[in-house]
Amino acid sequence: MSHGDLETGAGLRELVERLYPLCRSITGDGVRRTLEIVGEHIPLEIHEVPTGTRVLDWTVPQEWNIRDAYIKDASGRRVVDFGESNLHVVGYSVPVSRKMPLAELREHLHTLPDRPSWVPYRTSYYSPTWGFCLAQETLDAMPDGEYEVCIDSTLADGSLTYAEHVVPGEVADEVIISCHTCHPSLANDNVAGIAIAAAFARTLQTPQKPHYTYRFLFMPGTIGAITWLARNDDRVGRIKAGLVLACAGDPGSLTYKRSRRGDAEIDRVLAYVLADRAHKIVDFSPYGYDERQFCSPGFNLGVGSLTRTPYAGYPEYHTSADNLDFVSTAAMEETLRTLRDAQAVLDRNRSYVNLSPYGEPQLGKRGLYDSLGGRSDAKQAQMAMLWVLNLSDGEHSLLDVAERSGLPFDSVVAAAQALHDAGLLKD
Amino acid sequence: MSHGDLETGAGLRELVERLYPLCRSITGDGVRRTLEIVGEHIPLEIHEVPTGTRVLDWTVPQEWNIRDAYIKDASGRRVVDFGESNLHVVGYSVPVSRKMPLAELREHLHTLPDRPSWVPYRTSYYSPTWGFCLAQETLDAMPDGEYEVCIDSTLADGSLTYAEHVVPGEVADEVIISCHTCHPSLANDNVAGIAIAAAFARTLQTPQKPHYTYRFLFMPGTIGAITWLARNDDRVGRIKAGLVLACAGDPGSLTYKRSRRGDAEIDRVLAYVLADRAHKIVDFSPYGYDERQFCSPGFNLGVGSLTRTPYAGYPEYHTSADNLDFVSTAAMEETLRTLRDAQAVLDRNRSYVNLSPYGEPQLGKRGLYDSLGGRSDAKQAQMAMLWVLNLSDGEHSLLDVAERSGLPFDSVVAAAQALHDAGLLKD
Amino acid sequence: MSHGDLETGAGLRELVERLYPLCRSITGDGVRRTLEIVGEHIPLEIHEVPTGTRVLDWTVPQEWNIRDAYIKDASGRRVVDFGESNLHVVGYSVPVSRKMPLAELREHLHTLPDRPSWVPYRTSYYSPTWGFCLAQETLDAMPDGEYEVCIDSTLADGSLTYAEHVVPGEVADEVIISCHTCHPSLANDNVAGIAIAAAFARTLQTPQKPHYTYRFLFMPGTIGAITWLARNDDRVGRIKAGLVLACAGDPGSLTYKRSRRGDAEIDRVLAYVLADRAHKIVDFSPYGYDERQFCSPGFNLGVGSLTRTPYAGYPEYHTSADNLDFVSTAAMEETLRTLRDAQAVLDRNRSYVNLSPYGEPQLGKRGLYDSLGGRSDAKQAQMAMLWVLNLSDGEHSLLDVAERSGLPFDSVVAAAQALHDAGLLKD
Repeated sequence: MSHGDLETGAGLRELVERLYPLCRSITGDGVRRTLEIVGEHIPLEIHEVPTGTRVLDWTVPQEWNIRDAYIKDASGRRVVDFGESNLHVVGYSVPVSRKMPLAELREHLHTLPDRPSWVPYRTSYYSPTWGFCLAQETLDAMPDGEYEVCIDSTLADGSLTYAEHVVPGEVADEVIISCHTCHPSLANDNVAGIAIAAAFARTLQTPQKPHYTYRFLFMPGTIGAITWLARNDDRVGRIKAGLVLACAGDPGSLTYKRSRRGDAEIDRVLAYVLADRAHKIVDFSPYGYDERQFCSPGFNLGVGSLTRTPYAGYPEYHTSADNLDFVSTAAMEETLRTLRDAQAVLDRNRSYVNLSPYGEPQLGKRGLYDSLGGRSDAKQAQMAMLWVLNLSDGEHSLLDVAERSGLPFDSVVAAAQALHDAGLLKD
Repeated sequence: MSHGDLETGAGLRELVERLYPLCRSITGDGVRRTLEIVGEHIPLEIHEVPTGTRVLDWTVPQEWNIRDAYIKDASGRRVVDFGESNLHVVGYSVPVSRKMPLAELREHLHTLPDRPSWVPYRTSYYSPTWGFCLAQETLDAMPDGEYEVCIDSTLADGSLTYAEHVVPGEVADEVIISCHTCHPSLANDNVAGIAIAAAFARTLQTPQKPHYTYRFLFMPGTIGAITWLARNDDRVGRIKAGLVLACAGDPGSLTYKRSRRGDAEIDRVLAYVLADRAHKIVDFSPYGYDERQFCSPGFNLGVGSLTRTPYAGYPEYHTSADNLDFVSTAAMEETLRTLRDAQAVLDRNRSYVNLSPYGEPQLGKRGLYDSLGGRSDAKQAQMAMLWVLNLSDGEHSLLDVAERSGLPFDSVVAAAQALHDAGLLKD
Repeated sequence: MSHGDLETGAGLRELVERLYPLCRSITGDGVRRTLEIVGEHIPLEIHEVPTGTRVLDWTVPQEWNIRDAYIKDASGRRVVDFGESNLHVVGYSVPVSRKMPLAELREHLHTLPDRPSWVPYRTSYYSPTWGFCLAQETLDAMPDGEYEVCIDSTLADGSLTYAEHVVPGEVADEVIISCHTCHPSLANDNVAGIAIAAAFARTLQTPQKPHYTYRFLFMPGTIGAITWLARNDDRVGRIKAGLVLACAGDPGSLTYKRSRRGDAEIDRVLAYVLADRAHKIVDFSPYGYDERQFCSPGFNLGVGSLTRTPYAGYPEYHTSADNLDFVSTAAMEETLRTLRDAQAVLDRNRSYVNLSPYGEPQLGKRGLYDSLGGRSDAKQAQMAMLWVLNLSDGEHSLLDVAERSGLPFDSVVAAAQALHDAGLLKD
C-alpha cells in the first residue's frame, strides 16, 4: 500500500482522512485498524492486554465491537444510521433490538439543543447502557409512534490494544510522546494528534540518533495510559520528559499546558520554543488528557500537554463538527514544527562544567577570540562563549544560558561545542 | 440581668453601649466591671496578677483607681469634669488636690489644637505624673487666674486583671482571639472589639465542637499580653493561629495585618476569606496592638490582626470622637461574619495524602463519577475531587487546593470528605 | 609637587587632566607614570610582574613601550602623528619603518566611517601586528602614492605593573575597589575612574578606621585582574564586597551592574544608595570590565560594577571623542558621593540578635521610650527601635530592617546603637 510523505502537509492530511472514518473506542477493532494504518508509516509494537487485567486501581474492561446500528421509523426508513456516522451510537452501548414508542426511546437519545444540526459524542464505558446521539433537528422531525432500534454490538472478554514506537537515542533516558486513540470520527480530537505523532516519529529516523530515546505511545485515553503505567513501572524512572499530544490541528493558536511540577525541563523547553509563535501557556490542572495520569502525584512526571485550542475549549469539541473541515493543514504543520523544535532544544540542552573557572580562560590563544581588541561591537559567538563559560558551574543548563543571556539557543550550543572541543568544558 | 442576643446587630450594639462609659485602664475596677458584663454573655476565667510580679522583661505595675477629678474655676464651677467623660483625666494620674494659676496648670493640660472640640486620650503608666485632657475650645475659654484641681485617684499595690474564655475543640491545638480591655470611653478602640469577640465566642457554643480549641483573651494592651505570655509558656507551642481584634466597628473597610511570618496559615485564611469583601491586607509591622507581643521574634506566632481602619489610621483615633456614633452596627456585623468565615476555613483546612497516587483512582466504581462520559461540562464536584486527589501529596492543604484550582473552599472540603469516606484519602 | 584636594571637583578635574595625555597600555612606562601621579595623592604599593609569569590560564606578555610614530606623505609632512594623540597607534604595535603605497598601507589603517572626524582606539595585545588609527576625514584626504610609516616601539621582556592602596579597617575582611589603568587618552574610560578611586581612598584616611579593610586596585584590564587574582589566592576568601569602577565621569546617569550572584550584599547596598538618585540597575553579564574576572564562576565574588553610562553604551566609547570635554566635574563628584554613601551603608550594615526576644522589652524603663503614651504620632526613632528589635533574629541585617520598615538607614543604625548600648542587642 502506498502512502504519502508524512512530513508534508499533504501527507499529514491524507493520513487524517484515512483514519477519520474508523469507529474507535477504548478497545476493539477500530483501534486495531487505526494502528495498522499508522504502522504503514512507522513500525509499531502492538500490545493486547486481556479483559480483566488489573491495572493500578482499574481493571481492563470488556472489548466492544459494533457492526451496525440504527433507528427505523414506522416506514422502515433509517432516521439514525451508524453507517452514516459512528458518533450516532453511544460508545460501549450494549446490544439492543427492540421496538418502542418515541416517548420511551427519548431516554436513550442525546442531542445538542443549542447546536441543532450537530451530533454529540457520548460514551458509557463503565456503566452498561445503550443510546443514540443525533442532531436536535433530526429528533424534532421524528413523529411520535413506534420505532425499531437496533445496536448490533458485542461487549465481551477480549483485550485492550495499544502500540509503542521507540526511536533509540544516545542515552536510555526517555522522552514520551503520547496520544489517545479512543475517539471515533473526531478529526481534531484526536486523529490529527495521531497523524502528527507518527510524522514526528518519522523525522527522528535519521542516521544520527536523537540524544534521548523517544517513545511514542498510541493508546486509549485514561485506561490506556493507566495500563501502560501499570505495565512499565520499571521504565517510569527513565522518563525525563514527555508531551501529551491532542487537539493538534484546529486553527486556534498553540497551547502548552505545564506539567504538574510547573518547572520541569519540558516546561522550560516549550516556553522557549513557543516564544516565537502565537501561543498560550497554562498551568497544570488535573483535567484534560493523559497528563492526568502521568502527572498523578505518585508519578509526578515532567510531562506537559501540547494542543492547539485546549481540551473542551471550542464549540466543535466532542461533536460531529469536529470533522475534516475543522482541522487545518497549516495548523498541523505548525504543531509538527513545534515538536521538532522542542526536540532540537531538549536533545541539546546540557549542563557543562567550566574547567578553567578561575578568571576567564584566554580564548585568543585557542583561536576562539578576535585578536584585534578595542572594538565595541561584540560578536554574538564570542558573547555566547563568555556566557557559557560564566554559567557553566554545573547548575545551569544551556537553556538557562540562552534565557539569561538573551542569545539564541543555537548560538549557545555552538559556543558550548567549541569550548568543549577546546577542552574548556566537560559534560 | 437580661441581655440581648449578641449574634444580632442590636445585641452587639447594646453590649457596646453598656461597656462604653466605664473607666478602663491597664488595671483597676473599670476592667473588672467590664469583664463582669462580658461574663453575662460567656463564662470567663478571671485572673488577678499581683503588682510587682515579674513578667518577661516587665513588672506588673501598681493598680490604679479613680473616683472623681475636676478643674474648678474661681467661681467653683467644674470647667473640666471626670464625671462627664473619663477621657478628661490622663490615665494613671497620681492624686492631686491643689490650687494653682492657669499658667502653672497648663503644663498638665492636653488638647488637640487642630480638632478644637475633641478631647484627646492620654496615659502615663510608667512615669508618675498627673494631667487633664480637654477640648481646645474649653481651654481657650478659661480665663487666667487660680484654679482648683483635684484627682481623687489611688495608685497602690493591687493586681492586673485579665480574663480567658476557652471553647474546647476536637484537638488541643489552639487558636487565640485577643482584644485589649485597657481603653476607657473609646468605642471603636476597643469596646467594639470586646463585644465582637464575645459574640464570636458565643457562636462557637454549639453541640459540634470546633476543630481547634479557641481561646479568647480579654486583657490590657502590652502589659496584659506580656503577662499572659509569661504565664503560659507551656501553652505557646500549641497556638496554631491567632487574631488580635481591634478597631472592629468603624465604617472603614476591613484590614488584615499579616503575622510577622507573612505566610502563616492564618495569613492565607484571612486573605481567602477577605477576597470577597472590600478589604486591605498589610504586612506586619511591630507597631499596633498585641500582635507586637505575639509576633516578637522569640515567639513569632502565626498571629495576625483584624481591624477595620487600622491602628491610628483615622482622625477620631484616641479622641472623644471615637464615640458610640463612630461605630456602625453593620460594620460590627461584617467583622463578626468575617471571623466566623475565617474559623470555618481554618477549622476545615487539612492536608491529606492520596492513598491511590499512581494514576487516577477509578471514581466511577465508587459512585463518585458521572457514568456517562464524553460530556464537556465538567461538574464542579468532580473537578474538586480531581484537584484534591492530584494535590494530596501531604504538602498541600485544602486551602492550597482551593487557591490553585479556583474552586470554592466548600466544594474542596466536600470533595475531600467524599474521597476520605471512600478510603481514597488519609489524614 | 603640589596637587589639588581630590575631594573637590576642581581637584578631581586637575588629576584627570594630568593623567589624560599619558600613553597607557597593559604594560609599560605610561602605566608607571600614571601610578606615580596617583601616588602623589595616596601611597601606592607598586608591583612589577615579569613577562612570562603564568597567571591562571594566562601568561604575562612582553612589555610594550613607544617613543614615536607617524605616517609621512610624499612631502615629508606627518599626516598621522603619535605626538598629537596616542590613539593614532594600535596598542602593542610591533616596530615598523618602511615606505609603502597607500593601497598597501590601508590594511593597517583603522577609521570610523560613520564618525569621520573621530579617531578610533584599537589594540592587538596577543597577535603581533601594527597599525594606525585615524579620522576617516584624514584618510579621505590622503592621495594615492608612497607613504613613510614609522612606529618606534619596543616589545620586549619586561613586566606588568599594577598598584595597591590599602586602608586598614576594624576587621580584616576586605572591600575591593578596582579600576583599569590600561587605556591611553580616553578620559571617561578610565582616567575619571582612576581619579575618583584615588579621591575615594583619600576620604577613608580619617582617624576613625572604616569597618572593612578597603583595598584599591589600579591595574590593567583583564590581564591585570587575572594577575592579581593569581597572586592573591589566599586573600580572595576575605573579599566581602567590591566594586569595579569605570566610565565614572560622563554626563549619563549612574548605572550599577549587579554581581553574578545578583543578591550579594554589595548589590543590596548599591540599590539602596542609588534609590535617591537617577540611576539604572542592570543584571550581571560576562562582558564589560574586570567584574568578568572577579565574577568568574570559580571566584564568584560579591563584586559589582559602578559606572555612569555603562561599557560601550555611548558613541564616544573607545574613540577620540572620549576626551576631557566628555567628562563632567559634577558627574565625577556624584560618582564619588555615591561611593562614599555606599561605604557608609556597607560599613554599618550588621546583623544583631535581640537579647530580649520574648515580647517587647520595656524601653521606657531604659529611657528609650516616650513616657506619655496614647499619642498617635509615633516617633521615627521609636519605630526604628521596634523594627530593629523585631527583626534582630540573626537573619536580618540593618539594611533588611531599613528596607522592610521604609525607615532611613541612619535611623535604623542609630536605633541599633542605642539598643546595643542598653544591652538589648548583641552582635
